[in-house]
Amino acid sequence: MEAIKIGIIGYGYWGPNLARNFFDLPGSDLVAIADLNAESLERAQSRYPQVSPARDYHELFKLGLDAVVVSTPPSTHFTIARECLLHNLHLLVDKPLTLNAREAEELIELAESRGLNLMVGHTFAYNGAVHALKSYIDSGELGVIYYIDAARLNLGLFQRDSNVLWDLAPHDISAILYLLGEKPISVSAHGMPCVSDGIFDVAYLNLIFPKKISAHVHVSWLDPCKVRRITVVGSKKMAVFNDMENELKIKIYDKGVDVPEYTNGGFGEFQYSYRSGDITIPNIRFIEPLRQECQHFIDCIVNRAEPRSSGRDGWEVVKILAAAQHSLANGSTQEVIQWKTQNTVTSPSLQTLG
Amino acid sequence: MEAIKIGIIGYGYWGPNLARNFFDLPGSDLVAIADLNAESLERAQSRYPQVSPARDYHELFKLGLDAVVVSTPPSTHFTIARECLLHNLHLLVDKPLTLNAREAEELIELAESRGLNLMVGHTFAYNGAVHALKSYIDSGELGVIYYIDAARLNLGLFQRDSNVLWDLAPHDISAILYLLGEKPISVSAHGMPCVSDGIFDVAYLNLIFPKKISAHVHVSWLDPCKVRRITVVGSKKMAVFNDMENELKIKIYDKGVDVPEYTNGGFGEFQYSYRSGDITIPNIRFIEPLRQECQHFIDCIVNRAEPRSSGRDGWEVVKILAAAQHSLANGSTQEVIQWKTQNTVTSPSLQTLG
Amino acid sequence: MEAIKIGIIGYGYWGPNLARNFFDLPGSDLVAIADLNAESLERAQSRYPQVSPARDYHELFKLGLDAVVVSTPPSTHFTIARECLLHNLHLLVDKPLTLNAREAEELIELAESRGLNLMVGHTFAYNGAVHALKSYIDSGELGVIYYIDAARLNLGLFQRDSNVLWDLAPHDISAILYLLGEKPISVSAHGMPCVSDGIFDVAYLNLIFPKKISAHVHVSWLDPCKVRRITVVGSKKMAVFNDMENELKIKIYDKGVDVPEYTNGGFGEFQYSYRSGDITIPNIRFIEPLRQECQHFIDCIVNRAEPRSSGRDGWEVVKILAAAQHSLANGSTQEVIQWKTQNTVTSPSLQTLG
Amino acid sequence: MEAIKIGIIGYGYWGPNLARNFFDLPGSDLVAIADLNAESLERAQSRYPQVSPARDYHELFKLGLDAVVVSTPPSTHFTIARECLLHNLHLLVDKPLTLNAREAEELIELAESRGLNLMVGHTFAYNGAVHALKSYIDSGELGVIYYIDAARLNLGLFQRDSNVLWDLAPHDISAILYLLGEKPISVSAHGMPCVSDGIFDVAYLNLIFPKKISAHVHVSWLDPCKVRRITVVGSKKMAVFNDMENELKIKIYDKGVDVPEYTNGGFGEFQYSYRSGDITIPNIRFIEPLRQECQHFIDCIVNRAEPRSSGRDGWEVVKILAAAQHSLANGSTQEVIQWKTQNTVTSPSLQTLG
Repeated sequence: MEAIKIGIIGYGYWGPNLARNFFDLPGSDLVAIADLNAESLERAQSRYPQVSPARDYHELFKLGLDAVVVSTPPSTHFTIARECLLHNLHLLVDKPLTLNAREAEELIELAESRGLNLMVGHTFAYNGAVHALKSYIDSGELGVIYYIDAARLNLGLFQRDSNVLWDLAPHDISAILYLLGEKPISVSAHGMPCVSDGIFDVAYLNLIFPKKISAHVHVSWLDPCKVRRITVVGSKKMAVFNDMENELKIKIYDKGVDVPEYTNGGFGEFQYSYRSGDITIPNIRFIEPLRQECQHFIDCIVNRAEPRSSGRDGWEVVKILAAAQHSLANGSTQEVIQWKTQNTVTSPSLQTLG
Repeated sequence: MEAIKIGIIGYGYWGPNLARNFFDLPGSDLVAIADLNAESLERAQSRYPQVSPARDYHELFKLGLDAVVVSTPPSTHFTIARECLLHNLHLLVDKPLTLNAREAEELIELAESRGLNLMVGHTFAYNGAVHALKSYIDSGELGVIYYIDAARLNLGLFQRDSNVLWDLAPHDISAILYLLGEKPISVSAHGMPCVSDGIFDVAYLNLIFPKKISAHVHVSWLDPCKVRRITVVGSKKMAVFNDMENELKIKIYDKGVDVPEYTNGGFGEFQYSYRSGDITIPNIRFIEPLRQECQHFIDCIVNRAEPRSSGRDGWEVVKILAAAQHSLANGSTQEVIQWKTQNTVTSPSLQTLG
Repeated sequence: MEAIKIGIIGYGYWGPNLARNFFDLPGSDLVAIADLNAESLERAQSRYPQVSPARDYHELFKLGLDAVVVSTPPSTHFTIARECLLHNLHLLVDKPLTLNAREAEELIELAESRGLNLMVGHTFAYNGAVHALKSYIDSGELGVIYYIDAARLNLGLFQRDSNVLWDLAPHDISAILYLLGEKPISVSAHGMPCVSDGIFDVAYLNLIFPKKISAHVHVSWLDPCKVRRITVVGSKKMAVFNDMENELKIKIYDKGVDVPEYTNGGFGEFQYSYRSGDITIPNIRFIEPLRQECQHFIDCIVNRAEPRSSGRDGWEVVKILAAAQHSLANGSTQEVIQWKTQNTVTSPSLQTLG
Repeated sequence: MEAIKIGIIGYGYWGPNLARNFFDLPGSDLVAIADLNAESLERAQSRYPQVSPARDYHELFKLGLDAVVVSTPPSTHFTIARECLLHNLHLLVDKPLTLNAREAEELIELAESRGLNLMVGHTFAYNGAVHALKSYIDSGELGVIYYIDAARLNLGLFQRDSNVLWDLAPHDISAILYLLGEKPISVSAHGMPCVSDGIFDVAYLNLIFPKKISAHVHVSWLDPCKVRRITVVGSKKMAVFNDMENELKIKIYDKGVDVPEYTNGGFGEFQYSYRSGDITIPNIRFIEPLRQECQHFIDCIVNRAEPRSSGRDGWEVVKILAAAQHSLANGSTQEVIQWKTQNTVTSPSLQTLG
């Protein structure tokens, strides 16, 4: 079987990682790289002399590619992705898929109508530690899930065309949807534009799921400490996924609370020590998630399979982000999210979407 | 000068720490300890054979005490504190001062009208690390303060008569008010009752201060990791107060963000490394804050001085907690806090309060 | 049964902890405290008004005590302990028991001939984490033990009459003897007198045990980081006891090395990832080891039982320390330790000792 | 100016990192890669299709190369390096340069007689954090240096033809020589062959320098925790270089000990808190040390300059390792190192060496 011919649009921050993987993977053939920026393009060329460079990504449409990877700023995703689909190219688009749900729906429609793969770069869907966490939840070992608390903090602005919500929260939201296997019924968000007027660099999201489960996500471009953590609290055990650890990414705490009997009498407060068992740090065989993601993209094209992080997953995250953005802009209103239209996403007519 | 004669009501979780300090301090004479619970009282007796035990705290009113320390469950604070004041006793009440603002106001009124000291146990007001943090803020070294993020997490229920908000958040709220020297104009809160119906064991507070500064407080009785942290993010530097460290409680990060010039052209996103300077961990001479607090209580009685954590400070925290509680119970509504009545707290008439 | 009447000689650094425990324990009656230093004695008095103070420890011999606890500088241990035994008092002596083996032997003889308990304050013998570590070793879970590596580092001089070896190494040596259930056949030591001439503040010990097991101990009064760690490496698993952790003191690593087959050909070196399993942090119910030790002292007096950290254990540690000291003073010579005389320690005649 | 034509011999564990850098650097042209192992060679080919592969490294001598990088097992270094020099190729040899001093001397002679560059891959010589540490020492900020303590621990065997000493200790020894600017006058070593007979996987080195400074190095292939740390203790300040940290690699502790006045009287021991100042974590601009090393190799060839980690530096480390190895094999004897012959290393006659 021939290797899938790949082009990459955008060789800025994340593009080089995508290029490295598609260059290395046996099933893919990295044919071309496009970037408006001359310097970025030069870097790509000196690293991959055999790959065709292009300032204008439209040149990629003439090269007989099978698929394109879009790693440009989020605001350009829709336009570029749409063009690629119209040129009958399979697509891997960096997260977030688009900056509004309507555009995501249009891309999904277009891909389906043309039988093309549309995949979004939700890297956590390809992360062994997240898979392990999911299996702890699904096996019932953690008991009933009470809530999830996630934090993704760092010092660093990455995008000027959106804000911290669109930049960092897709990771946690996609992970939470995957872990819980459910979609939130409402969301609200607080945030602050600290450094630049109008650009939120700190945000707190509150997601409410069915069965009273809730999730809280803290994202920040303005924190002195780098934090990438997801805590899952269950009625039997608790789990922490700390992505800053090199090897010991997951800790399972055999901790739980039994409702204490009421102490009758005594002004004294009562203190419980709830630690009841061991902490386990499972050995997780770790393969670079991006490598897995790129391999999966190729496999899905070859096997004509639905990717694990499909356009629909991308759309779900975008819908939640858009609702959170609305909350952020309107004084932290509680935004109910209508998922009914989701079914119609697959419908052939764009008019039914929205 | 004679030592201040002290009685302690409540020898449960925190009471023994108060007893140890008032027993040790040269200026105080620990005369009596009351607790409804026979076992707690026995422990007090075996530790302090020379101190009078009492099941009924009313017995303390017959012993010619100068002052009483109330360390009972929050729901009993008002009743006991009121009685003590009516018996002309100086008062140190554990945080939170009361469970609603009206009761706090009444206690303040009563204390003022009788010339008694009313102090609330906001321990952070006596914490060297918090003082150091405050001086970094006030000196301008951190620049303009953007926001404060605080977390106080643990596994452990402490009070059945209130919730995690009233149990843990007083610490952070009192610290934040002290650090910023301002009162919030509004508050909202999310939370979850996980283990017991109706008792919130996890809560997220959002405080909005004048000049766009905001503060976020995360408190939890249901987290596998013990966290006690306050992060202050300024335009020039950032500071983290980690109370779980034994010695290195404060870290000052010489980090800041300069708004980058817009990169013209290029699909590539841009990545900045904003770390611009050193991290400093100042050497803070650490004395047990509770020891400082107890000493301050005695000093204020002797010198007829206003305590650093006065009844009014207690009232401010209670007002914020009450508003947050209201938000919690009403779907995270944004609660505006009216501080105007604060001035009238000092008025002689109780009718003007509230 | 009546409580054991206890006197404490030495109320400096460690004495207050001993006093607190013997005061609190139901089976003991803290009767007297002696200290040459007036200020220390005053502190003891204000804390325990009911206890008799004494500048001269000889006064304790007139009070009808059952037992004495010696917590004075090591160089005074022998003289004071001997006098106590001659006054028919049971004895708990702080580690190290004495500063040479002959004196330790004389104390053991004396105690045995008079039917008195002689116990040494090897606190690790009463530490739940060390017990847990021992049970992991004894159960075979770690496999064959390869070696033990211990470090006890800090910034702080505690004794002017000895050196870091005698101050810190008794902890690790007593723990290692207990963990392995064996005595070393030889020892050597490196060290440096950094701050004061002739007083070693940093030392490295190398102990060789039968069956090729070895142990390495690093002690320092001159390290910027506080470290208290014992690592046990076995053929199947490895364990780390980190005493600086509050709760998670023991970590069991399911790690082992299988001898790799020789890679035939290729200049390339080969890299193995040996991590084969999970890490477990067992939940150890932690009770203050000193509390356990004090309780055990009382129990042994009452039950006429041999203490877990007997005079003989103290003697073993002193013999090793003395050999290490000799090595330190003689250019790190390998010192063979003769244990045969150990049997004669129990003989009735002092002449056979040595 | 033309790019330096480079060949790499050995594409196993470390070779790919060297290849990546020489491929990327503008001043170098990666022409050929040799490895006996077919699989390794295939990996090299698929990554660098434009580079000539060779099973037999002798083929590289026909390609008109300017320089060769040797990254094969240590036992092959001498033979391969000698051949390269005899083919008039500049040389970068991975550490350790050779497995005995005589061979290192022969290589140095050969390189000098032919005017070739001989460089050894002591990566720490190109590490910004080590440079920073050196400048703290040289500026006098740490005061008089008392000692250096280094640890390099991990789980993993890398070489079957030598032992942990030759594998890991070159890093620390080269760093210590660089930091102190001195050579040790003697060395001794303890160690254990745990997993395989005769192959030491754990070793402790003790180096004695002039002016009573000493250094201790702990290396292990059999430790559950990955440690890469160098502690420098001075009379004024102390510094820790923790290479496991991502960013905060160096911590400067403003700690020192003043000899306390003798406490007159009192059995109580005295406890000092010596912490006198702040901890500073300097912001070190970190560039991949290997990148710096490769660049430096090219620069030295172009500018005909002596490399920072010259053959002589490699020889010094080998001499120390050989003495340590002798100590290890002979019951931890103290090995005096004769440095006088060093001067004759530069002599034209090989006979004077050794």
